[in-house]
Amino acid sequence: MPRYRIDIEYDGGPYAGWQRQADQPSVQGAIEAAIASFCGETVTLKGAGRTDAGVHARGQVAHFDLDRDWPVDTVRDAINARLKMSGDRVAVLRAAIAAADFDARFSATARHYRYRILNRRAPAALERGRAWHVPRPLDEAVMREAATRLLGRHDFTTFRSVQCQAASPVKTLDRLDVVRDGDTVEVFASARSFLHNQVRSMVGTLKHAGEGAWTADDVEAALKAADRAACGTVAPPEGLYLERVDYG
Amino acid sequence: MPRYRIDIEYDGGPYAGWQRQADQPSVQGAIEAAIASFCGETVTLKGAGRTDAGVHARGQVAHFDLDRDWPVDTVRDAINARLKMSGDRVAVLRAAIAAADFDARFSATARHYRYRILNRRAPAALERGRAWHVPRPLDEAVMREAATRLLGRHDFTTFRSVQCQAASPVKTLDRLDVVRDGDTVEVFASARSFLHNQVRSMVGTLKHAGEGAWTADDVEAALKAADRAACGTVAPPEGLYLERVDYG
Repeated sequence: MPRYRIDIEYDGGPYAGWQRQADQPSVQGAIEAAIASFCGETVTLKGAGRTDAGVHARGQVAHFDLDRDWPVDTVRDAINARLKMSGDRVAVLRAAIAAADFDARFSATARHYRYRILNRRAPAALERGRAWHVPRPLDEAVMREAATRLLGRHDFTTFRSVQCQAASPVKTLDRLDVVRDGDTVEVFASARSFLHNQVRSMVGTLKHAGEGAWTADDVEAALKAADRAACGTVAPPEGLYLERVDYG
Repeated sequence: MPRYRIDIEYDGGPYAGWQRQADQPSVQGAIEAAIASFCGETVTLKGAGRTDAGVHARGQVAHFDLDRDWPVDTVRDAINARLKMSGDRVAVLRAAIAAADFDARFSATARHYRYRILNRRAPAALERGRAWHVPRPLDEAVMREAATRLLGRHDFTTFRSVQCQAASPVKTLDRLDVVRDGDTVEVFASARSFLHNQVRSMVGTLKHAGEGAWTADDVEAALKAADRAACGTVAPPEGLYLERVDYG
């Protein structure tokens, strides 16, 4: 009974999120349906990150088991052919045979997210649904200084959704970089794992710093408060991309 | 009676093209309707490039005249507010007062296009409608060599739509660069002006070269044939972006 690993790209816009839902489209549900359609087997896909509604991925990873041993390129192409037919905005980039104990969620050693901000007066046309439109000028140097205050091992309760189910609010943030390229400001966040809404909550707070409403000290004080009410704002889902997941 | 210049970004996907149509959505029509809605004046917008259905723009330029003298930021914001309300995927990046003899089309000294190819086995998910999906591996070095054969002043009849209304098929191609970044191959084309479908016809031919079906010599022979039937293929509109227009 081979275990397959797939790397997945999707446009989160049309979906209620990664996780299968009874009555709404989901990325997991779309891929499970494509697998059933190509080989007749009903599987449960397990993903590395359960992205929220509207959140995109360039490198989500998932695993599933099939009774039959298929060539991996057939798995990739057959799933993609079905996803295209169903009009889904999901593509399998790669398929591979994984070790029997590989777990897309629990074997992951690092998750890398990117958050895109379109920082200009004019609204998004080409990037509608693909970036957060922030019309007020952002000072990326201030955002960068504030970001350094969040690096390392902390209680991230301030940046945690009230729905978060993680056992502990303590996480280690390995990277939080702010990079500007013209009208686009991108925030790169890496950690072994994140709390629910953590990246979007940190980006929303960095945006306050970039607009001059908060200083880097205010951001640090918000972190130390370990209080959800101290969070600046939660950035909208459409700017967030799960870029890559590392293993081993 | 001031003349206004606007710089425009749009997602060409929902539109039958730049040019106003009686019964189909167009970019020109959307902006003219937004102008009428904000100031009550009926204008005819003149654009630098009449992009086809599905072609995008990051820097289209157009001009129009109004009876009243408005602050340019008001013009930009008011048009954008209307375009947002109408659900159009069009945004005015900048508005400025132009000289009375400024003509977005005829004053242009250079037009810069970008063509995006997604070159990988898996279909596009995030880039659906934003790039041409070419599954077979492209050799960008061969494409680059073929592209150099098209530079300069030539009769571009081979790369000209039969619907093209230009007086002469002779144009000067100033830039045709091929750049790969991972799975993405981009072609950058610059000229004072292009024939109808010229960029897409050149890209379709370069793709044949990149796949190994044509040599650079074949591409040069196709150019010299000055015969539409010698054109390789016409690349689809969704990969094409009008990036910038230069004046003066």
